[in-house]
Amino acid sequence: MVHRVAVIGAGPSGLSSVKACLDEGMLPTCFESSDDLGGLWRFKAMSEPNRASIYRSLTINTSKEMICFSDFPIPADYPNYMHHSKILRYLKMYAEHFHLLQHVRFQTSVKTIRERPDFSRSGQWEVVTEGGGGQEEKHVFDAVICCSGHYTYPNLPLKDFPGIETFAGRYLHSWDYKGPEDMCGKRVVVIGIGNSGSDIAVESSRVAQQVYMSTRRGAWVIRQVSDNGLPVDMKYNTRFVHILFQLLPTNVMNWLGEKKVNAMYDHTMYALKPKHRLFSQIPVINDDLPFRMLSGSVILKPNVKEIRGSSVLFDDGSTVEDVDAIVFATGYNYAFPYMPSSAVYRSGHRVGLYKHVFPPDLEHPTLAVVGFIHALGAIMPQAEIQARWVARVFKGHKKLPSNQVMMKAVDKDTKDMENSYVLSKLAPLHVDFVSYMDEVAGEVGARPSLLWLFFTDYQLFKRILWGPVTAYQYRLVGPGKWAGARGAIFTQFDRMFKPLKTRELEVEKASVSSRLMKLSLIAVAGAVGIYYVHVRHPAAMTTLLSKLRPQTA
Amino acid sequence: MVHRVAVIGAGPSGLSSVKACLDEGMLPTCFESSDDLGGLWRFKAMSEPNRASIYRSLTINTSKEMICFSDFPIPADYPNYMHHSKILRYLKMYAEHFHLLQHVRFQTSVKTIRERPDFSRSGQWEVVTEGGGGQEEKHVFDAVICCSGHYTYPNLPLKDFPGIETFAGRYLHSWDYKGPEDMCGKRVVVIGIGNSGSDIAVESSRVAQQVYMSTRRGAWVIRQVSDNGLPVDMKYNTRFVHILFQLLPTNVMNWLGEKKVNAMYDHTMYALKPKHRLFSQIPVINDDLPFRMLSGSVILKPNVKEIRGSSVLFDDGSTVEDVDAIVFATGYNYAFPYMPSSAVYRSGHRVGLYKHVFPPDLEHPTLAVVGFIHALGAIMPQAEIQARWVARVFKGHKKLPSNQVMMKAVDKDTKDMENSYVLSKLAPLHVDFVSYMDEVAGEVGARPSLLWLFFTDYQLFKRILWGPVTAYQYRLVGPGKWAGARGAIFTQFDRMFKPLKTRELEVEKASVSSRLMKLSLIAVAGAVGIYYVHVRHPAAMTTLLSKLRPQTA
Repeated sequence: MVHRVAVIGAGPSGLSSVKACLDEGMLPTCFESSDDLGGLWRFKAMSEPNRASIYRSLTINTSKEMICFSDFPIPADYPNYMHHSKILRYLKMYAEHFHLLQHVRFQTSVKTIRERPDFSRSGQWEVVTEGGGGQEEKHVFDAVICCSGHYTYPNLPLKDFPGIETFAGRYLHSWDYKGPEDMCGKRVVVIGIGNSGSDIAVESSRVAQQVYMSTRRGAWVIRQVSDNGLPVDMKYNTRFVHILFQLLPTNVMNWLGEKKVNAMYDHTMYALKPKHRLFSQIPVINDDLPFRMLSGSVILKPNVKEIRGSSVLFDDGSTVEDVDAIVFATGYNYAFPYMPSSAVYRSGHRVGLYKHVFPPDLEHPTLAVVGFIHALGAIMPQAEIQARWVARVFKGHKKLPSNQVMMKAVDKDTKDMENSYVLSKLAPLHVDFVSYMDEVAGEVGARPSLLWLFFTDYQLFKRILWGPVTAYQYRLVGPGKWAGARGAIFTQFDRMFKPLKTRELEVEKASVSSRLMKLSLIAVAGAVGIYYVHVRHPAAMTTLLSKLRPQTA
Repeated sequence: MVHRVAVIGAGPSGLSSVKACLDEGMLPTCFESSDDLGGLWRFKAMSEPNRASIYRSLTINTSKEMICFSDFPIPADYPNYMHHSKILRYLKMYAEHFHLLQHVRFQTSVKTIRERPDFSRSGQWEVVTEGGGGQEEKHVFDAVICCSGHYTYPNLPLKDFPGIETFAGRYLHSWDYKGPEDMCGKRVVVIGIGNSGSDIAVESSRVAQQVYMSTRRGAWVIRQVSDNGLPVDMKYNTRFVHILFQLLPTNVMNWLGEKKVNAMYDHTMYALKPKHRLFSQIPVINDDLPFRMLSGSVILKPNVKEIRGSSVLFDDGSTVEDVDAIVFATGYNYAFPYMPSSAVYRSGHRVGLYKHVFPPDLEHPTLAVVGFIHALGAIMPQAEIQARWVARVFKGHKKLPSNQVMMKAVDKDTKDMENSYVLSKLAPLHVDFVSYMDEVAGEVGARPSLLWLFFTDYQLFKRILWGPVTAYQYRLVGPGKWAGARGAIFTQFDRMFKPLKTRELEVEKASVSSRLMKLSLIAVAGAVGIYYVHVRHPAAMTTLLSKLRPQTA
């Protein structure tokens, strides 16, 4: 029976893991290599090796009601898209509210975790840590949760860029990028059109002489400010849209989605259009890119073919001269260097984890990975539901299937991903947000039943069907049920509107009746119609006129 | 008969005035106080008294086909929204192409212009200039064109901000703003929500700790990236929309326009909504503001009531503490200090100029003002058509009405503006772009006849009716007719698309037939319909089902 749990990392995943362990009556010890919590969300002015790194201006691209933990709503007056400093503040409030800090050992990094010699019997782990002064320590834990994240090890594929060694300027990985100050007046090439690449291109373009963004495949790019100004995830990350995805062929959803995206700005006109369909890949989120392109400060380019001194050559034969800086926004490698190789199950190109959490081939389910996931939706609620599941499994309330079944499931996942996402090799962590939340919540026993709600609580049912899939939905029933969940769902839009209510409006009645306006519109439509008939089918017009002409004899 | 013309200022208005004079066979001398041409568009790292000033990142908010001079298209590969450095480059190309530079005297500022003693007879002016070394010079000119612009004298209404003298931080006018570098980590209040105010708030918000934007009235804010990604003026500044404005009641146009603007982001939700209707004022143009508000980095506030030390108090009783900087984006005063008071006709709160060009009460029409105008459309083509008219009048090809008629017309303009624009006191230069272009082009004799085109050149007619009102339209006929005008109209969208064509797309056929998609949509709509009937009218459903039930006996 698991009691003492090691949690590696005190970012959002680590914190929610600590809380989940406490909620199940276990005793977590969280090892955090830095001197504060927050993980990714703790901005440092200089990137530090083996730690995630963000840039100064980073604002999360999912909205506050969608990122927040299921039993701890973000304060109403916080903005919808939060700057990293506000996310950190929220995480600290969360840690304080649930008394998590006393379980965190800062400045202590985990060097290795290994099965204990008696693992077959005990399922226990030996964890070796290193303190700030370099002193090693050995611990024994009943179980381990790895929350070391997946933005830690930059992927810098220099070998794909022949001639990079001749490059006269400065090159860096997006992981090293902190702000545009070094780009002032420079000529910059950003390689990669992911979220980081676009953010860096857009931000640099405000001070650089010229920014070029090179992309092999193009991308679908969506706005955070969606219809009527709603955050795009509050508008579209709904259960209803999720059901549409189940009901309609993917092609139809792609067609509808692409129509909508192109209505914002035509991806063909902007040369962004990729070969893949909209929902074959998680789209890029960037509100500013189209204007930066229309003002020419970001110029899109194809794949880089070669680098020669200060020139960058592209696949289409074009060249950009006098390049001062190249930013490789080429993503991250995924690794758990502290794990024993016996715990890392490979499934194709992926680290194979059962439902993205459990290594499928261990003798005991006492090792789990939380937050090692990526969806068109925030990581935090996904990590939290994973942590709740892990705690249930550790505690013995929930059994995992046999290793054979789990390995089969992992391999099936790998195949499914190959079928539904293009470039699946680059996206081994992708899941569908709502499906995944529902699935893991099902394991926890916290998945709400729509049918039951339909009959017992129609008002709530409506909000859950039509509204955004906020994490509160997974605190309505089952273990970890929270009395505030229903209320949080009913007030989620209030909290969304609140931060914008900073100026009172003098409300005025519209002064014209809709009827008048509609009549006028019909009149104009008529006039335009007549014009068209006249121009396109003059004969028809003549006939029509002759019929209307009063008979004179 | 006018031959020698003084042109004051070598910005876009001055340059097109020089060209117009040359085109009519006159001899212009352009006095430019700085050492280069470009006027407003010449960025200086420090603002200089009595000169317009722009900030480092400024990009024009009208698109290239709409700003360009009528007989000199902007190069196809230039971006649609041009950075000030590119506008300056274009102006230099223009000056070079038409050999204008030899007529410009740099580092020579105009101190005074006065009617010559024999003005009644000669209509001539005495122009006193000051060279770079301070040496004065007197000149006699047959006529004068004032192109000194209207962004020269900052309006800093400190008396409306009680307590400003106690303010501990730094305050400045937007005229003094060069970039966000001084705002790093600061708490900033921007006063005024015009184009400058919004630009400065948005730009500062990327580096500031917090930006507040105070507005007395709110504003309608539109995007430059319009439907399908077209520049908003290419899409909506069309003759067809102009005709709609003539045909439909303003209320209807407002209703339609506001619907469209609110679909982008609801101005009520964003607390931006002003009391006035959309077309009662020229809207603010800013693509980035909604996201900056949704991410909380720009917070809207009402009017400032008082300043106390480092606190700013607002009309709603709220206070912002620890303010480091206040930016007054409170617009400009309009003045012609070098002009004799006899030439400045006051009409209400306005400097009264006949059709925004000619002082209406002079004995001879030998003084004109060019570019002293503001519309939802670029100044450059408006200044150019004014200059062409002025040259025709100076040359004697065109007569002005009597002073009485002109003064009456000016006073009528003032009244009309009071009726059609709110805050007309703040906007004495406002005109409707297309109406004004057409009107002045009518004076020149260069206004295209739609009816004539309909019968003689239907392809061109279509483009002129449905397409954007680009200045080329005023070079099709009459004095100054340009052989390239028709071609320029036919290729204007090519030049718009060109700068975005920087990456080849692999075109792929859509793989699904529209029919399949439509069928699926109908199926879903049906299902949703049934659900609704079932929920809203269960009785009806029961009846329906009973009718469908097979009869059993």
